[in-house]
Amino acid sequence: MPNDPIALHEALTTFDALWSPRIVSRVNDYDVRIAKVEGEHVWHVHDHTDEFFLVLDGELHIGLREPTGERTVTLPKGSVFTVPRGTEHKPHAPTGAAILMFEPSGTLTVGDRHDEVPDHVDVTTGHRVDAELPSP
Amino acid sequence: MPNDPIALHEALTTFDALWSPRIVSRVNDYDVRIAKVEGEHVWHVHDHTDEFFLVLDGELHIGLREPTGERTVTLPKGSVFTVPRGTEHKPHAPTGAAILMFEPSGTLTVGDRHDEVPDHVDVTTGHRVDAELPSP
Repeated sequence: MPNDPIALHEALTTFDALWSPRIVSRVNDYDVRIAKVEGEHVWHVHDHTDEFFLVLDGELHIGLREPTGERTVTLPKGSVFTVPRGTEHKPHAPTGAAILMFEPSGTLTVGDRHDEVPDHVDVTTGHRVDAELPSP
Repeated sequence: MPNDPIALHEALTTFDALWSPRIVSRVNDYDVRIAKVEGEHVWHVHDHTDEFFLVLDGELHIGLREPTGERTVTLPKGSVFTVPRGTEHKPHAPTGAAILMFEPSGTLTVGDRHDEVPDHVDVTTGHRVDAELPSP
């Protein structure tokens, strides 16, 4: 795709699939991905990378299994959070959300280890956003 | 700082300085930085890294000196753009903007090579955001 600005709200109109990230930009060997989410993802862990979340719309919850126990963090629209590498986590969004993620290219949506993946979760390293996307 | 979500609009209230990024999260060896900007930055180039911009509020322009000539890209609120490594660029925001950036920790605001730095541009690798920031 040409190197022009991308309006995220436009990019979000180009797909409907849930839990199926689209890559909107690449920064060195990292991807910037956006996704629509609703309901539950799956418990999983990235052994070798942190994973950054920014909530563009709606509200995201992330369950975390930490050495001190299990907790859930809540990210309203406009909030950011980084899940540290090695921390088992499960995003969920009962009322839906649009999110932006930053992580190394090639990072799988379900991590290196995970619970059984339900049908509604896309196992992917991210799809290309529609190349025909108009610039803002 | 504790690993809790950060509301970006709250983080933006903790400082007034322009062109002086605050680090709100770290992802592996990358920083997530936010900044308030208004007026002109300085022509500069990062020789070894791309630089990602997301406009949180207002409108950002980025002048680019590319092999094919000079152009300016415009990023309204909610738009993203990555300046490729080695491309001389100058952000400017006549009416002000709040922006989020991803780049490797240690990346200088004025790059590896730059024009004379005006007094209003902070030469920094980013400041820590206020550790007392309330979580959302």
